[in-house]
Amino acid sequence: MSMNTFGHLFRVTTWGESHGPALGATVDGCPPGVPVDEAMLQHWLDKRKPGQNKFTTQRREPDQVKILSGVFEGRTTGTSIQLMIENTDQRSKDYGDIAEKFRPGHADITYWQKYGIRDYRGGGRSSARETAARVAAGGVARAALAELMPGLKITGYMVQMGPKVIDRDRFDWDEIARNPFWTPDPQAATDWADYLDELRKDGNSVGAVIEVTVSGTPAGLGAPIYGKLDTDLAAAMMSINAVKGVEIGEGMAAAALTGVDNADEILMGEDGPVYTTNHAGGILGGISTGQDIVVRFAVKPTSSILTTRRTITKSGEPAEIITKGRHDPCVGIRAVPVGEAMAACVVLDHLLLDRGQTGGVRGPIG
Amino acid sequence: MSMNTFGHLFRVTTWGESHGPALGATVDGCPPGVPVDEAMLQHWLDKRKPGQNKFTTQRREPDQVKILSGVFEGRTTGTSIQLMIENTDQRSKDYGDIAEKFRPGHADITYWQKYGIRDYRGGGRSSARETAARVAAGGVARAALAELMPGLKITGYMVQMGPKVIDRDRFDWDEIARNPFWTPDPQAATDWADYLDELRKDGNSVGAVIEVTVSGTPAGLGAPIYGKLDTDLAAAMMSINAVKGVEIGEGMAAAALTGVDNADEILMGEDGPVYTTNHAGGILGGISTGQDIVVRFAVKPTSSILTTRRTITKSGEPAEIITKGRHDPCVGIRAVPVGEAMAACVVLDHLLLDRGQTGGVRGPIG
Amino acid sequence: MSMNTFGHLFRVTTWGESHGPALGATVDGCPPGVPVDEAMLQHWLDKRKPGQNKFTTQRREPDQVKILSGVFEGRTTGTSIQLMIENTDQRSKDYGDIAEKFRPGHADITYWQKYGIRDYRGGGRSSARETAARVAAGGVARAALAELMPGLKITGYMVQMGPKVIDRDRFDWDEIARNPFWTPDPQAATDWADYLDELRKDGNSVGAVIEVTVSGTPAGLGAPIYGKLDTDLAAAMMSINAVKGVEIGEGMAAAALTGVDNADEILMGEDGPVYTTNHAGGILGGISTGQDIVVRFAVKPTSSILTTRRTITKSGEPAEIITKGRHDPCVGIRAVPVGEAMAACVVLDHLLLDRGQTGGVRGPIG
Amino acid sequence: MSMNTFGHLFRVTTWGESHGPALGATVDGCPPGVPVDEAMLQHWLDKRKPGQNKFTTQRREPDQVKILSGVFEGRTTGTSIQLMIENTDQRSKDYGDIAEKFRPGHADITYWQKYGIRDYRGGGRSSARETAARVAAGGVARAALAELMPGLKITGYMVQMGPKVIDRDRFDWDEIARNPFWTPDPQAATDWADYLDELRKDGNSVGAVIEVTVSGTPAGLGAPIYGKLDTDLAAAMMSINAVKGVEIGEGMAAAALTGVDNADEILMGEDGPVYTTNHAGGILGGISTGQDIVVRFAVKPTSSILTTRRTITKSGEPAEIITKGRHDPCVGIRAVPVGEAMAACVVLDHLLLDRGQTGGVRGPIG
Repeated sequence: MSMNTFGHLFRVTTWGESHGPALGATVDGCPPGVPVDEAMLQHWLDKRKPGQNKFTTQRREPDQVKILSGVFEGRTTGTSIQLMIENTDQRSKDYGDIAEKFRPGHADITYWQKYGIRDYRGGGRSSARETAARVAAGGVARAALAELMPGLKITGYMVQMGPKVIDRDRFDWDEIARNPFWTPDPQAATDWADYLDELRKDGNSVGAVIEVTVSGTPAGLGAPIYGKLDTDLAAAMMSINAVKGVEIGEGMAAAALTGVDNADEILMGEDGPVYTTNHAGGILGGISTGQDIVVRFAVKPTSSILTTRRTITKSGEPAEIITKGRHDPCVGIRAVPVGEAMAACVVLDHLLLDRGQTGGVRGPIG
Repeated sequence: MSMNTFGHLFRVTTWGESHGPALGATVDGCPPGVPVDEAMLQHWLDKRKPGQNKFTTQRREPDQVKILSGVFEGRTTGTSIQLMIENTDQRSKDYGDIAEKFRPGHADITYWQKYGIRDYRGGGRSSARETAARVAAGGVARAALAELMPGLKITGYMVQMGPKVIDRDRFDWDEIARNPFWTPDPQAATDWADYLDELRKDGNSVGAVIEVTVSGTPAGLGAPIYGKLDTDLAAAMMSINAVKGVEIGEGMAAAALTGVDNADEILMGEDGPVYTTNHAGGILGGISTGQDIVVRFAVKPTSSILTTRRTITKSGEPAEIITKGRHDPCVGIRAVPVGEAMAACVVLDHLLLDRGQTGGVRGPIG
Repeated sequence: MSMNTFGHLFRVTTWGESHGPALGATVDGCPPGVPVDEAMLQHWLDKRKPGQNKFTTQRREPDQVKILSGVFEGRTTGTSIQLMIENTDQRSKDYGDIAEKFRPGHADITYWQKYGIRDYRGGGRSSARETAARVAAGGVARAALAELMPGLKITGYMVQMGPKVIDRDRFDWDEIARNPFWTPDPQAATDWADYLDELRKDGNSVGAVIEVTVSGTPAGLGAPIYGKLDTDLAAAMMSINAVKGVEIGEGMAAAALTGVDNADEILMGEDGPVYTTNHAGGILGGISTGQDIVVRFAVKPTSSILTTRRTITKSGEPAEIITKGRHDPCVGIRAVPVGEAMAACVVLDHLLLDRGQTGGVRGPIG
Repeated sequence: MSMNTFGHLFRVTTWGESHGPALGATVDGCPPGVPVDEAMLQHWLDKRKPGQNKFTTQRREPDQVKILSGVFEGRTTGTSIQLMIENTDQRSKDYGDIAEKFRPGHADITYWQKYGIRDYRGGGRSSARETAARVAAGGVARAALAELMPGLKITGYMVQMGPKVIDRDRFDWDEIARNPFWTPDPQAATDWADYLDELRKDGNSVGAVIEVTVSGTPAGLGAPIYGKLDTDLAAAMMSINAVKGVEIGEGMAAAALTGVDNADEILMGEDGPVYTTNHAGGILGGISTGQDIVVRFAVKPTSSILTTRRTITKSGEPAEIITKGRHDPCVGIRAVPVGEAMAACVVLDHLLLDRGQTGGVRGPIG
């Protein structure tokens, strides 16, 4: 069982470090004949690209993706697709200070303890730069889904920054692309800008909650018991750097509900069952209902901050650390396209699994 | 990639339906030479057994586990272990009413839509009875961990029932085994008894939050990027019936913290690094720090309730449904030993993976 | 990665020892709605059953299979299927002599060395009795194939016993079921009976070559590079006890051919391409051509013989050993239905994989 | 289950086509701290490199490998290693003739039928050029084995070309590196040179048998039942282009032996058990005995030949084909380092699996 691989039939193996020559994703199991080119993938990478505004790292990476295999004359061949992104801005002197010290809240110490090897250049493999490869792979998944499930729509957006939660009454899908925070609440966009600016000046950082909605999936994706759609979504989101919690539908709040309140009652609509509510987040017993699939995840604040924290060195000496360098004050912002990419991979994977096992046949209702 | 299997090297495949002749778990990859017998596994199954008090289903299942393979003269052989639990109380007439109707909030409808086959006898494969097999397999994992990681302790307990959260100031480890809710807060135990009694009489049900603490693991378990320890814990917990959210350490609350507050500062202790706090829940970059591993999950309220809800039949007719039968008013109670079992499986799996890849060697500090 | 599991989407995990209470197979990923009952599976088990004539072990096992899960009202549900065969003839005193000594050519010594645990009762997990579970699982695969690929035919037969090879000019498909050796050559059946009788009386044993032909598969099953159809067939056959060689089409003899002779020329038939010959054994580049798939495997002679051989004991003392007990003089006979079962599992697995990845669509010719 | 991936814990995913910009291997699960650099890998690639003598393709590829990730300051980090080989000689006009016609005996037709996409530039993904990536990955495996199992030696050599078999009495390990055929028989080297020259001039090709011997492994690698060491070796070799048969130890010839002859008797040596013979090829019950592991595979003659063969076009028209271009008259020659590389990957994988499951502990003898 590969440790750098995600997925069952549609499998993504990422590789590369933040300051090595390149990073990328090996994508296996993509259906053949899907129109894919570099521009299509670049579109999604540009959403995640650093340095687009003052709220993300000022590191300048063009994040240009190259397709090295698996696509011939503009279509996938059905064999493994190699996506490579070269690192151009490998300014490693910024990291010189942390070669000997461990950053609190960062994987520096656990990587060292596990592997006895430390790539101190910006975190190496544990850097969030790895997520660029996910976004590229997610672009391939989206291209395949566009062919196989034309009405599908995957949208990520931020619903909380620090303690500030959006007002769902102001939810506007069109607003999401208009502000640097990918939030659907225009008022939140304004408030958060001030709030984050302040934090950034203080050399501090903050966490966030991202929600991803997938609409247009049929009922029947997923499987009991361990290959459940929600299990795989939870794993997908928890595998993203800095994520500490994952929720489906009501999520943790489901604990506070009674069975009477939580029941999504079922009515018969023109094209099949319709539900009065969606507490379930579109998944029952690990299998999609056909409603919107709603998954949320919490991202902790960046551990690389400009405020002094106590730590130790590799030789066990007490030390203090300030992490200079060009870090995101809220990594949640750039986690939005990453969450979308992971959702795309999971949905495609389960679509392929489902047509493998059941042939896509469905038990009829009505 | 098997859909009814969990784990990488220590792999558990469960099988069986709530009203078939038996259910069980095929456990592969257990180290050889581990002392295991039926009594050891039964100990854990008895924790989960239904009908122990008025707060769990009155279905009477002895849940006697039999070891059919993989153990010889009291020790594991290193080959596949078959654990079987026969169903003795298969009173299926209770379920007659739901053969045609779908229970809102239950997997009835999605199983039907996906497979076109419906085992209406108590939910078949989607019944929480499947978790008995997990507990048995978790018993094997615990036995192996007792050999390989002697100081390890895995403890699950309930920290929230419905809207009622425990007071952490009253947290008492010894209290957990004394009350039917496995809660560490004695006051909560009293309050919840009244609250749940009321709900039960009203034909209602309620959700809960369970926390599992694993103490005594070394630093270094887990792996980037997709085989992270937290990824696998999230998948493990989300795969349990009725779970809608999973958190590690601060969990969703991490979103509200700043980087300054969230940093677990590192000091040098006598035996290695010590941390001032544990916001991370014992995992950084997917790898254990050696601190307590803390994972929480939210269980939604039982969907099988005695209150009338609207639904439809297989032929698409509108209908009303009351689920009679013997259901748990709060499935969270019996989810406690299940969460422990899943944690045991994940920790053992990562211990085996780690000694496979690194040989258990660690980068020294100090 | 499970060690007791075979297959990608259609996955079989076997469990059980020769002298434990039971053995069986956990079958995951079978399509839903397939008609399966115990009698259908028993049909194939009876082909493999010991004690049917003087050429197989006189151990008397009814090998009755029970379906414990995954089938409801005569059809597969899409969830995991548990197949159990209880051991009734566990006469372990026959094996008392070998508790301390290792049988030459047997897994006794390697199991001991690897696991430090020895189930001396008839070989435990390494006994060919495990293959009963494969035949049961193969019966499920055949049932699914009967639905999904109606014209498919899988036939195993013996083409060589010891040094005696069949004459292909006498090949008669109908003869296969008429003799105890499953050979298509009636003359060989007569000759081999005398030959094997002699060997048996001498306390000796002999090897064999089994061929399995699969006809009626479409072009397009399989995949580059490592999930090739021939790769999986080779693994399937090599995983059977006592197998030492596997061949596809010309097999080892392909080495002696020139490119001119080996080319299966392609003509256009009424329904698509037809080939002048089938040196390839129905597989090119890991993918089926639509011709007959032809796989062969060699089984070594039973190592449990009544002739004295030199060996050592667990304490390292030199010893002599004669293996009494009830052993097959030619295990190849009972390997015929096992080879068929493995072929059925591999073909179904690749059918599911193919419709998962490509949706079963084919590049048209003509 | 990935289709372009090989291995359990040490996992290799290859990517790339013969005429794309590059090809390579993503290597996951390599232990950390292993000294690896490009020169070490290049050593093995140079053995396989085309154009070294008149008996291999005249295509000129430097096959320079680049390490893009997973190695830091000369040591593996424990994370995924990306190995890239750029294609420099992409002369695709040679293949113009075969864009519409299918080469008999080649994967052209099955790839087209399966994927509906045809990369006619030299076979695309089905080209033996993919094996360069295997050799690079095998170099990483060898480097890890050099650390973990210092006495290990993996040697491949050719034992048969066309109908001409070596004389084992002339077997000379030192001869292997001295002739272009990697054969241990100096007389064969001379004979084969004339024979192959003749065939090449005739526009013909021929098959071969390669043997790989692994010496220096401990007893105890491998596992029942499906993750057997011989199962994985068989899969590894059968996955190589053009391979049609795989043998362990006696291989297909085991069928002709009696149990008395085939028994490898066991004596007690100074350091543990010693065997009088090695019919088993170093593997019993799927687990290594500590003797030499001996695996053989047959490679069919190259299907791309300069002799006219009948075929059809994509539109189903009858046609004749001569495959010009620069092809190997005996692909078996360059298959030697590929077989070695696969053996290295399998042995390392099982070493990691074994220390994962058993911790490398062994049952003592004596």
